Amino acid sequence: MNKKNHRIVLAHRPDGEPKETDFRLEETNIPEVGPGQVLVRVIYLSLDPYMRGRMRDEESYAPPVVLGEVMTGGTVGEVIVSNHTGFAVGDIVGDRLGWQEYGIGDTASLRKIDPTIAPISTANGILGMPGMTAYCGLFEVGRPKVGETVVVSAASGAVGQVVGQLARLAGCRVVGIAGGEMKCRYVKDELGFDACVDYKLTTDLSSALEDACPEGVDVYFDNVGGPISDAVALRLNTWARVVVCGAISQYNSLEPELAPRLPPFFVGRRVQSRGFIVSDFAAHFPPAMHIMGKLIREGKLKYREDIVDGLENAPRAFMGLLRGENFGKLQVRVGSE
Amino acid sequence: MNKKNHRIVLAHRPDGEPKETDFRLEETNIPEVGPGQVLVRVIYLSLDPYMRGRMRDEESYAPPVVLGEVMTGGTVGEVIVSNHTGFAVGDIVGDRLGWQEYGIGDTASLRKIDPTIAPISTANGILGMPGMTAYCGLFEVGRPKVGETVVVSAASGAVGQVVGQLARLAGCRVVGIAGGEMKCRYVKDELGFDACVDYKLTTDLSSALEDACPEGVDVYFDNVGGPISDAVALRLNTWARVVVCGAISQYNSLEPELAPRLPPFFVGRRVQSRGFIVSDFAAHFPPAMHIMGKLIREGKLKYREDIVDGLENAPRAFMGLLRGENFGKLQVRVGSE
Repeated sequence: MNKKNHRIVLAHRPDGEPKETDFRLEETNIPEVGPGQVLVRVIYLSLDPYMRGRMRDEESYAPPVVLGEVMTGGTVGEVIVSNHTGFAVGDIVGDRLGWQEYGIGDTASLRKIDPTIAPISTANGILGMPGMTAYCGLFEVGRPKVGETVVVSAASGAVGQVVGQLARLAGCRVVGIAGGEMKCRYVKDELGFDACVDYKLTTDLSSALEDACPEGVDVYFDNVGGPISDAVALRLNTWARVVVCGAISQYNSLEPELAPRLPPFFVGRRVQSRGFIVSDFAAHFPPAMHIMGKLIREGKLKYREDIVDGLENAPRAFMGLLRGENFGKLQVRVGSE
Repeated sequence: MNKKNHRIVLAHRPDGEPKETDFRLEETNIPEVGPGQVLVRVIYLSLDPYMRGRMRDEESYAPPVVLGEVMTGGTVGEVIVSNHTGFAVGDIVGDRLGWQEYGIGDTASLRKIDPTIAPISTANGILGMPGMTAYCGLFEVGRPKVGETVVVSAASGAVGQVVGQLARLAGCRVVGIAGGEMKCRYVKDELGFDACVDYKLTTDLSSALEDACPEGVDVYFDNVGGPISDAVALRLNTWARVVVCGAISQYNSLEPELAPRLPPFFVGRRVQSRGFIVSDFAAHFPPAMHIMGKLIREGKLKYREDIVDGLENAPRAFMGLLRGENFGKLQVRVGSE
């Protein structure tokens, strides 16, 4: 093959907010395909907040990206060479090939995607990791009951939009928190949330939450941390559950931000808070995927993707994601379908 | 009866640290004993941190003490008049008669205490609410596993001393946090904790914890909140459980103290944190009490009480409790055994 591979590697570990110079676009040869291997052409690259953590040189549930190595990331692509009997040229597959155009698929973890169920990009979104995060986090950790109030932050994001719709289908009052009128209108009018608090517009988040949640908050699905979550904490009901999914507001922090402690009476509310990582629930993915696919086909579950063209634009799109500039599940179209 | 009752009422709601003038000692008549009622002479009054919360005029799991009314509190006493067939004069009973010498026992909740099992004061301590708090909080919420590291703050206190001994009996490495050499030596040498960090002595709590917990912390039984708990949080292992039992360091706060937020990577540790109130576990008390009594008789479970003489000294003793001045389960001897 004469074509070249393009990939984006981690050039520097960011100091606070990532900069374009923390990434480097490189041209390399397309890797050789060994026996039993497949070569995949990446079509969609998923951009997700967790990637900021992988840019840090610190212990976590997954190893950091090595300096000079390709940035990690979930991908949807097409098999273009196959030396494996389980995969044919033309198969659409989900994998974690990272920020590049071509990669050798890991045949142990490669999953075939049926393009007749939904657009293939959804394998990076509502029918992929973010969708599973929403489903398992809400039902396995949040355990909402009919009639309860569920609040979700980053409500129009990849995970938030799914959490809210699922909670509504489960008979809950659903309140989103999002930044900007457009996003708030979307989650209310298109996704059917009962209310949405615009954290950029309101000057008093606490009162806005009180208005939106007249009966308090029973489940808080937290994607953002920081002052937004502080405000929700004070509205939590006795026996509330907090699903700690992410803390995007803190991912670029150099030093821990100072925040007010919870009031003394808080212990008596018996709040349960639990951090979780979607992969802990891998055993639940097949049935969850089945249900989510059905809900999408029935038109009960909608989704919105924010697709940016061109691998070279991935760093800028990712930096925007950390500032909340995306609107829906952010992906990069690396190659044509 | 010609004798008078003495009682301590809530005179003012404290503004920060309670003062002597927030309490008032009153002389009243001993109440009339109606049909089906019993009159109890209080022997021991339990003083506990939760009482600070009842002095606030705010919604909680229990109503606040009304201004001018007797301070709430658990008591051990002797039945001196009985119009109830279930109780005889001379019976020793546990109740919640509050800060006073005589009270009408609530025959629905009154429990008879067998003075042959252990000193009757233990019904306010290791065989009462604090002991149940330790047992249920540790086993139902903390769920320690053999070989894990359990850290408990206020380690020589009414709850902490029991938590640590139970965790040790359950095969865990147990590290206490206490203030002062005497308390630390007690929990190590007398109660058999593996280590104890003296938060008053150390200038670097984080390193002290690292030394004491070389394999990190799996269960943190938190009685204090504040900076001590911040330091423990950073040593929590993946899958750690935090038993949020109390936050005594914050009970006198007028304004929420500012504290550093947890670092972004914390979500990946999947920490479960749960606030609890001992009464939620009432169904577990009879078997727990049986086991605790057995462990005490076998000499496997020790306890230390800090008994102050005279009802009039209750306010000062209580104020000292909030500053960590007691050494063991604090009680007031209101009358002779």
